[in-house]
Amino acid sequence: MEEIKTHSSLRTVKWKDNKVVMIDQTKLPNELVYVTYTDYNEVAQAIRTLVVRGAPAIGVSGAFGLALASLQSKAADIKSFLADLETARKILFETRPTAINLKWGLDRIMNLANKKASENVTIEQLQTLIIDESKKIAEDDITTNRSMGNFGSELFSDKDTIMTHCNAGALATVAYGTALGVIRATKDKGKNIKVIATETRPVQQGSRLTVFELKHDGIDVSLIPDTAVGYTMANKLVNKVVVGADRILRTGHVYNKIGTYQVATMAKQHGIPFYVAAPLSTFDMQSNPEDVVIEMRKGTEVTGIGDKKTAPDDVNVINPAFDMTPPELISGIITEKGVAKPPFEESIKKLFENN
Amino acid sequence: MEEIKTHSSLRTVKWKDNKVVMIDQTKLPNELVYVTYTDYNEVAQAIRTLVVRGAPAIGVSGAFGLALASLQSKAADIKSFLADLETARKILFETRPTAINLKWGLDRIMNLANKKASENVTIEQLQTLIIDESKKIAEDDITTNRSMGNFGSELFSDKDTIMTHCNAGALATVAYGTALGVIRATKDKGKNIKVIATETRPVQQGSRLTVFELKHDGIDVSLIPDTAVGYTMANKLVNKVVVGADRILRTGHVYNKIGTYQVATMAKQHGIPFYVAAPLSTFDMQSNPEDVVIEMRKGTEVTGIGDKKTAPDDVNVINPAFDMTPPELISGIITEKGVAKPPFEESIKKLFENN
Repeated sequence: MEEIKTHSSLRTVKWKDNKVVMIDQTKLPNELVYVTYTDYNEVAQAIRTLVVRGAPAIGVSGAFGLALASLQSKAADIKSFLADLETARKILFETRPTAINLKWGLDRIMNLANKKASENVTIEQLQTLIIDESKKIAEDDITTNRSMGNFGSELFSDKDTIMTHCNAGALATVAYGTALGVIRATKDKGKNIKVIATETRPVQQGSRLTVFELKHDGIDVSLIPDTAVGYTMANKLVNKVVVGADRILRTGHVYNKIGTYQVATMAKQHGIPFYVAAPLSTFDMQSNPEDVVIEMRKGTEVTGIGDKKTAPDDVNVINPAFDMTPPELISGIITEKGVAKPPFEESIKKLFENN
Repeated sequence: MEEIKTHSSLRTVKWKDNKVVMIDQTKLPNELVYVTYTDYNEVAQAIRTLVVRGAPAIGVSGAFGLALASLQSKAADIKSFLADLETARKILFETRPTAINLKWGLDRIMNLANKKASENVTIEQLQTLIIDESKKIAEDDITTNRSMGNFGSELFSDKDTIMTHCNAGALATVAYGTALGVIRATKDKGKNIKVIATETRPVQQGSRLTVFELKHDGIDVSLIPDTAVGYTMANKLVNKVVVGADRILRTGHVYNKIGTYQVATMAKQHGIPFYVAAPLSTFDMQSNPEDVVIEMRKGTEVTGIGDKKTAPDDVNVINPAFDMTPPELISGIITEKGVAKPPFEESIKKLFENN
């Protein structure tokens, strides 16, 4: 782990020399390995297999995937070029169904491409515009997280112990993080806080990624199994919760990592404020709860860890990647435009009006 | 796994040829290995390291440990013999602090030994009496579980999907099980039921033991990560819950595997009946909640699985083995004397009056 500590800050995904460079998060915390892709199909596979994960990070990765596709296209005219982009968009979009940021990142590139294509630009010009836009999406992500951190830090006090679930950190974004960005900003304001991270089975983003990140930054963190959420709350070992989100509806329904719903329920039960931190790109103002597809992942994530088997192989497994937390369990939603408070239907609408 | 299927029923712990024979539960589900002990210190170590676990099983193991101690004693007189037994009792008692059955099993042997010692028996006679009593405790455990199954099965209906947490099965008892005994009895009465087993991190008694046991008996079981309890309840994939217990107070406060409290809270939230199945030997009629010690176990149970590391080694870990479920979340407590319903202070008292 010594080697890792020499890195002053983690950059989850970036564009470099017409290539996409990512931290391979499946290798953490044991190894910090960077992978480089030149083919959008590789980016799609990286999203599918959780090399990169976290709603904002896969939004940016989707945009970078389209930037690669623009370079890969052998089209001789703009119409074929746009058709190639559309093929890539579809493949990238279908990798994971729940996080809305992926759609948002892809749409932002496609809208630009379609608009500029009608303005009589060359393919080369369009490639440059797409690459620049994807890089801007990545840079905006950091600015957004900093702003979110600034607003969110007002909700936390000196001596708070804050529970977080999954990883909504630098590793879930381009850098800095959403929920962990808020925690970083709170600490940067001189407030002395502690963090309790849940393991977050089955993929263990809490123990593998959140603990790694917070230790990397010198923030006091304790790890608990997911089963100990109730115990730590009942024993007053935690007084606030902050998590990220993969999709937020206009009604304030929050889709996030499996287990979030029960953390929120337990928090409500113990009178502990439960906050969600997410950029406006995580909001889906169109859908209703019945429209949202919860991704079901393969059972082997639950029947073992790596090559270590912990259950009979042929057992039936129910392995949803996300769950839904209803608005009545949520104390506030922290965004780059401010904190939405209940009633959410109004306060969320207001965030977008001011946008 | 083929070899395992040839065993018609699992016997977790037994007395054979003046030795204690146990299934090594740390090896399941990958290997079914039996270990044999001739020294009570080995039994103490087996309890400490979870070779044997489950409140009723460690109660019986404690009694068998004292039976070994009686054979190991080199005392020349009854007084020294009782002192040797007391030394062994203390070592066995201190292995795990939460499950009350351990105390119950040890007390039953010590009470017999002290009583008979005053009746002018020889050391050899006392050894025989102690061994016979420990074997009776083991046999009683099976009878108790069958009776509990019989009462409990009345609470479950055809087409129920029953969630269980941890392992309160044959492997947590001598055979048959408490919560899983109720499930077995329900199935034996011709009711077509399904089971959802939680993984139960950190030690994974759900995926390793409950899934193994239920598949062994041909009962339909699906595995979920502990984080998916809320999802399965919100999506109506489960309509009843039954778990075991490590200690039950006269007020109906239930101490059981870490995570039970949040399963019970989520069940209450969704109007799903939550049952506890445990023999009278699990009841502690003296203690109040503030008297009960929750065992804290080592962090390496959470930072990895076997030799697979899933968190930085030096992270602080909070790893309580048990939590407390308050009576208001419990629909009924199934015992060998009948089902106690709320208000529990009255109904539990009644169980013991009829005893």
